[in-house]
Amino acid sequence: MKLGSTYTLSAIAALLDSPFSGDENLAVTGINEIHRVKHGDIVFVDHPKYYDKALNCNASVVLINKEVEVPEGKGIIICGDPFRSFNFILNYFYPFEFPEKSSQFELGEGSKIHPTAVIGKNVKIGKNTLIYPNVTILDNVIIGDNVIIQSGSVIGSFGFYYKNRGSHFERLYSCGRVIIENKVEIGANCTIDKGVSADTVIGENTIIDNLVQIGHDTVIGKNCLIAAQCGIAGCVNIGDKVTIWGQVGMASSVTIGDGAIIHAQTGVAKSLEGGKTYFGSPADESRNKLRELAALRNLHKILEQKNM
Amino acid sequence: MKLGSTYTLSAIAALLDSPFSGDENLAVTGINEIHRVKHGDIVFVDHPKYYDKALNCNASVVLINKEVEVPEGKGIIICGDPFRSFNFILNYFYPFEFPEKSSQFELGEGSKIHPTAVIGKNVKIGKNTLIYPNVTILDNVIIGDNVIIQSGSVIGSFGFYYKNRGSHFERLYSCGRVIIENKVEIGANCTIDKGVSADTVIGENTIIDNLVQIGHDTVIGKNCLIAAQCGIAGCVNIGDKVTIWGQVGMASSVTIGDGAIIHAQTGVAKSLEGGKTYFGSPADESRNKLRELAALRNLHKILEQKNM
Amino acid sequence: MKLGSTYTLSAIAALLDSPFSGDENLAVTGINEIHRVKHGDIVFVDHPKYYDKALNCNASVVLINKEVEVPEGKGIIICGDPFRSFNFILNYFYPFEFPEKSSQFELGEGSKIHPTAVIGKNVKIGKNTLIYPNVTILDNVIIGDNVIIQSGSVIGSFGFYYKNRGSHFERLYSCGRVIIENKVEIGANCTIDKGVSADTVIGENTIIDNLVQIGHDTVIGKNCLIAAQCGIAGCVNIGDKVTIWGQVGMASSVTIGDGAIIHAQTGVAKSLEGGKTYFGSPADESRNKLRELAALRNLHKILEQKNM
Repeated sequence: MKLGSTYTLSAIAALLDSPFSGDENLAVTGINEIHRVKHGDIVFVDHPKYYDKALNCNASVVLINKEVEVPEGKGIIICGDPFRSFNFILNYFYPFEFPEKSSQFELGEGSKIHPTAVIGKNVKIGKNTLIYPNVTILDNVIIGDNVIIQSGSVIGSFGFYYKNRGSHFERLYSCGRVIIENKVEIGANCTIDKGVSADTVIGENTIIDNLVQIGHDTVIGKNCLIAAQCGIAGCVNIGDKVTIWGQVGMASSVTIGDGAIIHAQTGVAKSLEGGKTYFGSPADESRNKLRELAALRNLHKILEQKNM
Repeated sequence: MKLGSTYTLSAIAALLDSPFSGDENLAVTGINEIHRVKHGDIVFVDHPKYYDKALNCNASVVLINKEVEVPEGKGIIICGDPFRSFNFILNYFYPFEFPEKSSQFELGEGSKIHPTAVIGKNVKIGKNTLIYPNVTILDNVIIGDNVIIQSGSVIGSFGFYYKNRGSHFERLYSCGRVIIENKVEIGANCTIDKGVSADTVIGENTIIDNLVQIGHDTVIGKNCLIAAQCGIAGCVNIGDKVTIWGQVGMASSVTIGDGAIIHAQTGVAKSLEGGKTYFGSPADESRNKLRELAALRNLHKILEQKNM
Repeated sequence: MKLGSTYTLSAIAALLDSPFSGDENLAVTGINEIHRVKHGDIVFVDHPKYYDKALNCNASVVLINKEVEVPEGKGIIICGDPFRSFNFILNYFYPFEFPEKSSQFELGEGSKIHPTAVIGKNVKIGKNTLIYPNVTILDNVIIGDNVIIQSGSVIGSFGFYYKNRGSHFERLYSCGRVIIENKVEIGANCTIDKGVSADTVIGENTIIDNLVQIGHDTVIGKNCLIAAQCGIAGCVNIGDKVTIWGQVGMASSVTIGDGAIIHAQTGVAKSLEGGKTYFGSPADESRNKLRELAALRNLHKILEQKNM
């Protein structure tokens, strides 16, 4: 997310009432979770395992719970609880608001919204787009032209991103948007979470069947086909022309290359190269998995023959 | 779908502005996708792999992208793009309309519709049927007596049937209906797609749990039990007294025999005989699958013993 | 469920017009399904396989379809069809009512209900709780403080509990409640069924992602994390601090110990000890399952080498 205007490192540190290291005038323009971070952004890290990754990512400012050497051209802010400080900044610049039934949203020519659909604030809908009955579009959603969203789907729900505090879970605010590009079609009773600090994006011409879950900050390319009941976690990157058959599950932060084909019920826990066909839970190349299954079908006969 | 009245082969060809072969007066009464086609129907085929199947099916007229010998008693219409021509005819006889909140539908005695439910056009609801809050019933849905549809379910959404045009996906219009027979019970947040050119049917006494997906043109028999989160694709035929436990997935166009029992999380990619019990992804007879799993559990011990 | 006041064994038998054995003045205070039964309760059993279990459970009165010896301090009522008699009593004390859009419910300070949410009767909502657009809360639901329920979720749908009558399925009335404790967060388009004769409970601080199904009478402990598209059947007992990743399925009546971690797409058919990590369908300890999968990946090579 952009912060709206440019701030200095010292101004952000003052906001958090926390010490900093680095050029006090360092320009800070945004805030982002590490998966989507850009130059000028604030990021946070609170586990030593990820210190190096955070300090060497594109962010300009790192909220961190240890004094460390400041990388060239960057700043750090020392926070007792970087997650909470990050959440504080998100909510300071994008304060949480409960959605109201809005009568004000941008609506392109030829688009139709069923009167039972709920449309939140800061929503833009392009031309010739159809929003079916009982759809919920929450705040900060951008929908292109010639889009179809079928009944009961929820666009812009919160991300499932929590810190385990032992005694309870603490939610990271979802301040990002959902961007649905032109000619996307979304089935019935789907759920598409907004980004935490970036955007969840469904690329042009992508078709999504019923009861599909798309997590926060996930970016899906163009011309993809996603069949019913797939569950795509948060921070996933899916390329173009990817085909995902029914009930596939995908863990957070994986990357799927262009043109991959993923058979039904596959469980994707690691990134997959494009141009190949996958099956199984955990996913493997389809031909490997089918060979394994064939071997397994014959195993007991072989063992009997060999008296094993 | 019926065309409303009887047309001639030459009249349909004229509508498509395309050449035809066969008796110009051949009677044409309907249009249907190949899985559900009847005598008098128009069907389409655009891939050489399926030419024979289409030319030898029950349809009277085949929209085809090649000049071929006309089967006895049939007609063909030569189209550059049979998918598009088929779609054109569907939409000509059943023009697409965005749903409106209708106040006019047939409602039997003793039935109750919660005021927050949305009911489309051409909907008939029998006696003593209960439609719960926030249900969406789209156009062209027939519901019998003593039916229960729980909250958030969507009946009559579009089918997931697209042609890949390379640059984009082109939807086949869904002009069919959903028919829900007497004493069917449907859980919460389910999605039941309408038929493309025939009907999606849920047979008498069949019980469906929450979050279940039923695809276009699928026909489910009587006295079936379908547990939560099952996903049944399009054009599936399920017999009577079939039990399907939770999270089962079923690929399009498979047939399941009467009395089959399918254990939870099974993935059905091929047709299954009735009267048997199945498990696994891909599905196998349960006893085979359990024997495989037992062998697999012991495999590493055997390999160690044999020093393999 | 409590019966409201205390009845005698003979009064209940008279209500059912059925003979009884045992002290006619035996106090009867409630009715419950065997999984949740307490002293003073009525329970039913109609299959010889479960006679002993029912006669020796905590219930005070057993509806049974055979004359048996009456356990010490208990009563039996001989019914031709105990399921139907049980259903009769449930419906006598808790008559079925179709939900109306209620304007009367208890609402704590600071809570916000979106105007498109539907709230049933006998609903209590605590403080600072947020109910998002298009949520359906049916009758007899108790919601604590600081709860979030996101759009499209359905709380208090019927349980999926039917008796197969051969010619049809007969539903057991769901007369129980849903209890959602403080600081629970529930995602979008979830479904949480009410208890049949007890309560479905979601414990304090538990976080549930989108499109999750929770069955009737299931009790989930505190501080659990349940990811998207999980399906938990009825009468399940989940301890505290249990983590369940996406698309996990759980069969009815299993128990999951505190602190268990269940990986994505796992199928749980049997109870699982706490403090361990599980994977696979059917579930096994994760390390066993991963060893099996590794052995399977190498199997065909081994078989080739050994010329098997």
